Amino acid sequence: VINVREARPGDGALLVVTTEALAAFHGNAGKVKATAERFEQALFCEDPIIGALIAEHDGALAGAVVWHRSFSTNAGHEIMYMEDICVLPEFRSKGVGKALMRATAELALARGYDAIFWLAMSWNERALAFYRECGAEVEEAHNVCRIKGDALKALAA
Amino acid sequence: VINVREARPGDGALLVVTTEALAAFHGNAGKVKATAERFEQALFCEDPIIGALIAEHDGALAGAVVWHRSFSTNAGHEIMYMEDICVLPEFRSKGVGKALMRATAELALARGYDAIFWLAMSWNERALAFYRECGAEVEEAHNVCRIKGDALKALAA
Repeated sequence: VINVREARPGDGALLVVTTEALAAFHGNAGKVKATAERFEQALFCEDPIIGALIAEHDGALAGAVVWHRSFSTNAGHEIMYMEDICVLPEFRSKGVGKALMRATAELALARGYDAIFWLAMSWNERALAFYRECGAEVEEAHNVCRIKGDALKALAA
Repeated sequence: VINVREARPGDGALLVVTTEALAAFHGNAGKVKATAERFEQALFCEDPIIGALIAEHDGALAGAVVWHRSFSTNAGHEIMYMEDICVLPEFRSKGVGKALMRATAELALARGYDAIFWLAMSWNERALAFYRECGAEVEEAHNVCRIKGDALKALAA
């Protein structure tokens, strides 16, 4: 049985597991700096901007979604950004991903958001097919740009 | 003279101008639903998740940045997401974009963020070259996925 529920205090360690699994899948094993404490601080502070859903399969951790509040300038209102969706390798092809997507959509609507957006790697055909099956429109040809660390300081100087 | 300042009450109408200019540049002229009121509500509410910088050239509106709070699961802490950076066509090649990027970096550091990320169209060579000049790393091969409206409701059902 698949059960999806909102994260609760104590789930920070589960989110580290799913974040590390996703990092490994993207070739970034060992690069995760997030800790259980940091997740719990962000999730359970006064006015959190992030939220998380935990998927369990027969009671075992099977996957998770981490989302955060976002804002569409075209729409002029908040929408939901799905930062991560993870299904642990041993729970693939059991409907966990679909259950997570469904619960995320339900939560978005309950919060009054009319859209969710997220990024996918364009080489990940399997994920893209799955997202399209879920009803998503996929826009190609975007690059993600990041500036951090010394480059950020140099730009600000 | 280029001046970049944080948006203040009354600037909502300026952000509609820059949002519409950006939409037109991306082939979405006429599709902007944001209004001055919606921008001001989002910017000047109790605990805003978004912020904006206004660039002026000799006192005239020349461009803007709209950013919002984001969260990196890999880092386990907040970072900045730059939703839009716009330089109005008549103010191109005057240093407005660089002044906006610099002010955005300065604001990010002042708020304790160690990274900014944003999306760029992969066909926009000029923008990508500019971002690289600013110190950004550009990751290719991302697709943006969106689910909205009836598809969102169908997924949640």
